[in-house]
Amino acid sequence: MDVVLLGSGNVATHLGLALAEAGHQIIQVYSRTLGNALLLADRLNAEAIDNMSGLANHADVFILAVNDDSVESVVGNLPHDLKGLVVHTSGTTSINVLKPLTRHGVLYPLQTFSKAKGVNFHAIPIALETGNTLDMAELEALAKSISNTVFVCDSHQRMTLHIAAVFACNFTNHLYAVAADLLRQEGLSFDLIKPLVIETAQKIQSLEPEEAQTGPAVRNDRKTMDKHLGYLREDPDWKRLYELLSEDIQKKRKVSGEE
Amino acid sequence: MDVVLLGSGNVATHLGLALAEAGHQIIQVYSRTLGNALLLADRLNAEAIDNMSGLANHADVFILAVNDDSVESVVGNLPHDLKGLVVHTSGTTSINVLKPLTRHGVLYPLQTFSKAKGVNFHAIPIALETGNTLDMAELEALAKSISNTVFVCDSHQRMTLHIAAVFACNFTNHLYAVAADLLRQEGLSFDLIKPLVIETAQKIQSLEPEEAQTGPAVRNDRKTMDKHLGYLREDPDWKRLYELLSEDIQKKRKVSGEE
Repeated sequence: MDVVLLGSGNVATHLGLALAEAGHQIIQVYSRTLGNALLLADRLNAEAIDNMSGLANHADVFILAVNDDSVESVVGNLPHDLKGLVVHTSGTTSINVLKPLTRHGVLYPLQTFSKAKGVNFHAIPIALETGNTLDMAELEALAKSISNTVFVCDSHQRMTLHIAAVFACNFTNHLYAVAADLLRQEGLSFDLIKPLVIETAQKIQSLEPEEAQTGPAVRNDRKTMDKHLGYLREDPDWKRLYELLSEDIQKKRKVSGEE
Repeated sequence: MDVVLLGSGNVATHLGLALAEAGHQIIQVYSRTLGNALLLADRLNAEAIDNMSGLANHADVFILAVNDDSVESVVGNLPHDLKGLVVHTSGTTSINVLKPLTRHGVLYPLQTFSKAKGVNFHAIPIALETGNTLDMAELEALAKSISNTVFVCDSHQRMTLHIAAVFACNFTNHLYAVAADLLRQEGLSFDLIKPLVIETAQKIQSLEPEEAQTGPAVRNDRKTMDKHLGYLREDPDWKRLYELLSEDIQKKRKVSGEE
């Protein structure tokens, strides 16, 4: 298919590379900043544009891979006579913001993208939603060409997926950052904790997270927790996080115990 | 070496199996509950005991692999005339609780252990501490026979490692559990989020967590965050966690931005 990418960030980059590799033609990359459009367009053999009036109207699919908060304003600026399917890639934006466009949908890849690291797109689940069945067939064909796990869900379920991803990925990464800071303060290497991080993620590939839970909170090692809270007294934000997360672990343990 | 294990939980189990595989002889497994001692002793060709007066005094090393909160009480009940080296495996317990014993030390494996899942012990960093240099040579030989990463640190640094591990592993696993609950409520499979969990852990093997941070908070996608908080209004604990973690991500971003 002939694809136009709107956006030049992490999602646009990885999605563009995966689509190109699957044999699709990325014909244009749009960004408000021409320099950013050029950088990505160059990698995809595409034309870089910074003006929506220049959009190639004959494209099969227009992919809005922009920040969640920018989707609506980009939609507002799109020509309304586009013949191709217009999809956004946002977890939390309803399909309804695309209603001004006749043919519209959502293609939401459930993954964390950083420009500095490549990803295997085939392992990434992709959630789809469209306004009608005909458009779904086309969008499904596109998604299946780059991923082995493609499924349909509505806008509410997609937001749930996004919030779950924020907890399991964005917040998790922040806890890694807290650990790194704690170690740095004592002159200890973050490398020491890397095997633990991998093992923790691998465990829940085969165990339920509830079964995999370890640590002072789930064992109710009160003395240990008090020592840790004493240690953290000079970092009130981390102390508060420690308390809240420990309380939540203990609540969950009680609920499970009663089942 | 001839080793006596005190404890029959996750750490005792995985450590015992690794030591046996490295060619050491586990001669006894002690537990207050004979049934638990028997279960593990059976796998290690060891004798099961539930009375400390029966401890084999000729053993080279006694390993106290018990809950952090129980180390002190177990030490209190140990015969004080043991000739072997007595070590505990606790992250947060000071070496000082072992002072009643002439030869003492700490062997702290930095990993999360669940009985239901095997681990590759050679990849697990082990932190060591002893009361004197001679004992360190012996403890180091033991640790190096099961791990490729053995290092010396004091009790304060070990507590830092433990707290960092609580953030990067125990709390992280709890966030996986929150994600699983959110998905379950909407009839969505936790499997959908597993590739994301692995990728998040893999990213920080090569990137600093600060560089790897993605999501609405670090982008300051305020509209998205407000929608998420609205969604979570009926789960006040998770809403509070969402707010705190997002605020902490944004604080960190500002600090880094000023550098």
